[in-house]
Amino acid sequence: MDLEQQIKTIADKAKEASLKLALVSKSERNRALKLMAESLWAKRNYLIEENRKDLNAAKKENYSKALVDRLTLSDKTIKEMAQCLLDTAKLKDPVGEVLSTFKRPNGLTIRKVRVPIGVIGIVYESRPNVTSDCIGLCLKSGNASILKGGREAAHSNQAIFKVLQNALKQTEISLDSINLISSVDRQAFHYLLKLDQYVDLIVPRGGEELIRFVADHTRIPVIKHYKGICHTYVSGHADLNMAHNVCINAKVQKPGVCNAMETMLVHKDVAVRFLPVIAHDLKKAGVEIRGCPVTRRIIREGVKEATQEDWDTEYLDLILSVKVVDDTQEAIDHINRHGSHHSDAIVTENKKEADWFLKSVDSACLYVNASTRFTDGYQFGFGAEIGISTDKLHARGPMALEELTTYKYLVFGKGQIRQ
Amino acid sequence: MDLEQQIKTIADKAKEASLKLALVSKSERNRALKLMAESLWAKRNYLIEENRKDLNAAKKENYSKALVDRLTLSDKTIKEMAQCLLDTAKLKDPVGEVLSTFKRPNGLTIRKVRVPIGVIGIVYESRPNVTSDCIGLCLKSGNASILKGGREAAHSNQAIFKVLQNALKQTEISLDSINLISSVDRQAFHYLLKLDQYVDLIVPRGGEELIRFVADHTRIPVIKHYKGICHTYVSGHADLNMAHNVCINAKVQKPGVCNAMETMLVHKDVAVRFLPVIAHDLKKAGVEIRGCPVTRRIIREGVKEATQEDWDTEYLDLILSVKVVDDTQEAIDHINRHGSHHSDAIVTENKKEADWFLKSVDSACLYVNASTRFTDGYQFGFGAEIGISTDKLHARGPMALEELTTYKYLVFGKGQIRQ
Repeated sequence: MDLEQQIKTIADKAKEASLKLALVSKSERNRALKLMAESLWAKRNYLIEENRKDLNAAKKENYSKALVDRLTLSDKTIKEMAQCLLDTAKLKDPVGEVLSTFKRPNGLTIRKVRVPIGVIGIVYESRPNVTSDCIGLCLKSGNASILKGGREAAHSNQAIFKVLQNALKQTEISLDSINLISSVDRQAFHYLLKLDQYVDLIVPRGGEELIRFVADHTRIPVIKHYKGICHTYVSGHADLNMAHNVCINAKVQKPGVCNAMETMLVHKDVAVRFLPVIAHDLKKAGVEIRGCPVTRRIIREGVKEATQEDWDTEYLDLILSVKVVDDTQEAIDHINRHGSHHSDAIVTENKKEADWFLKSVDSACLYVNASTRFTDGYQFGFGAEIGISTDKLHARGPMALEELTTYKYLVFGKGQIRQ
Repeated sequence: MDLEQQIKTIADKAKEASLKLALVSKSERNRALKLMAESLWAKRNYLIEENRKDLNAAKKENYSKALVDRLTLSDKTIKEMAQCLLDTAKLKDPVGEVLSTFKRPNGLTIRKVRVPIGVIGIVYESRPNVTSDCIGLCLKSGNASILKGGREAAHSNQAIFKVLQNALKQTEISLDSINLISSVDRQAFHYLLKLDQYVDLIVPRGGEELIRFVADHTRIPVIKHYKGICHTYVSGHADLNMAHNVCINAKVQKPGVCNAMETMLVHKDVAVRFLPVIAHDLKKAGVEIRGCPVTRRIIREGVKEATQEDWDTEYLDLILSVKVVDDTQEAIDHINRHGSHHSDAIVTENKKEADWFLKSVDSACLYVNASTRFTDGYQFGFGAEIGISTDKLHARGPMALEELTTYKYLVFGKGQIRQ
């Protein structure tokens, strides 16, 4: 069987399995997750052995330390993977939830109920824990999954998958409900992206390049965020101490992630009081500042000139662009024009101004007096995260179990016909 | 300015207008709809005059009577268009609805609120009333709209649009909130489909060919249904009188629409009692029957053999394919394999069997003991319909105002930072 046919067969069987999954009880799905967690821990030596093959290859190819870190499995990381599956089992099951019920004048009762989406494709890079995390979230929400991991983690992913598959054999759930495309051939990936008749949704997890590639090469719906260019606007009505803490946190606490601040906007009325103090602390934390001309006049030393490109750049690093604005409208316009519609904050004590900002800025998550770093499924209390969406359809912001479901309408009659 | 730049400018301005629309009050949006309704009626002679140009062209090109009917504007159709705008104004406004509020242990309050999607593209054929219906629904839900109608209705659409635009001038709403691409150049359509940085959603309204073309040529999310191959399954536990009425209604009452029945499945235990009677009435109503071998043995006369292709065909006509099945599982499998995931019904008095059917069939709308013809925004009580979706993401089944919205998360803090 050629590769294209192989991938197609996997997807076809996954579709069938997804229809059967709709009939499997919540308790059986949760039991599967617990068995999977136990198996991962029991087979940790095997997993670490297989992982070593990837690590050796990584060394030969001179991969960066950061990548090797992300790749490495240990007792600790395997325990975390198992715990994630156990935590997922404990989450509230969204499937079957009645979203609304309404009765029509002709006596029809219409019920809108949450159901699994069907087959979810997950495309990801390096971190092998994604394999078990995503299989767990899909299974919990009643979806079949097809995973395609990165070449660099091929042995680790395959080993984790085998362990999960063996655990699944002890349940009544079809083995075709979970799938890993093991071929490292780039073509396998292309074939998967073509199967819109089987795969209902693709969630790419990785860098912007991977995500753009997926979005450009498939007709399957993709939920994604390309990047996070997050802003904090320090208003003329801000509590400047609070603004200081919020901005330092948003920039410095973990600069390499999508909800970190990349641009700080400061109202001209408070710029002279606010900027020199925060510039001092930012520099102390190792942050390079790139400023507009006004910013550079105020801070004076050690501020590079921000170019037009800076306003559109996700640094993912200890770099911050800073702009002094004349008014709140200018801040709003700047964010809508240069932002990535991910997470943006205002620091202000003025409720009216806050409301205006919340209505006017077109982003998934908007903050009043808090750090943008909170945009995260766990921080929001969803118990899990499959990704963050800056798209507007279906899911926006942190995505967890609910976002892996759709709904259908059930209509109950007594022989009603249309007049 | 060349055509591509023209279309881009329209979309860019529409995006800006959509951001401003977020600040316009509900009452002002409703006032605009009422002014538009009044203007349509006041300018009916002008509309009918312009419509005549399209009708004359249609005659010259020998368009079918059905198409000419759909094209024609009269006092009656213009009154209906105006009434539709008035009805839309009266609907409950979904924008601003708080979908959920939750407080986190760190004191953050997170509010999930319904907001407009942004810029909606509507691509449609022949019926000029779509111009005002869709502009009305988009405006009501706070969205900017860009319409692209068919060449055959160009004068009518342009005239309706001008009248609506003039009405909008009497409000505080930006004129760029509503847009009609007047160029009949096919290229204009292509350019529109490329503008995924401005247009958030495309809703194509028309035949399968148009819809496929749109889906194949854009990266903008498209919500759609290609076709409706709807089934009714007459179970072995059916009330056969009820089944008779429901099936006749689903096939005969309006055969040319997507929620009409195309295939009837009948359990073998009731086939001998059920089929001859309904075959008689179907034939009386002018329905051609295409049956499986068992069906043909039972009905005997005047039943063509159903080919494999028949099970996958949307007739949109007085034709019905009929299959006798051994059990409910066979019916479920047939529907999942050959259906279009639109609307499917079971007729049964057995509650357990009904539940099984509802869980197992993967369609947007499922019926127990009622006609599939009820899949419709008005029949569901939504007060409007912008389309019907067989997609699973964002919207499934009849789409109305709520489906023209998305949400954002508003997070209220007191200076919280991430640990």
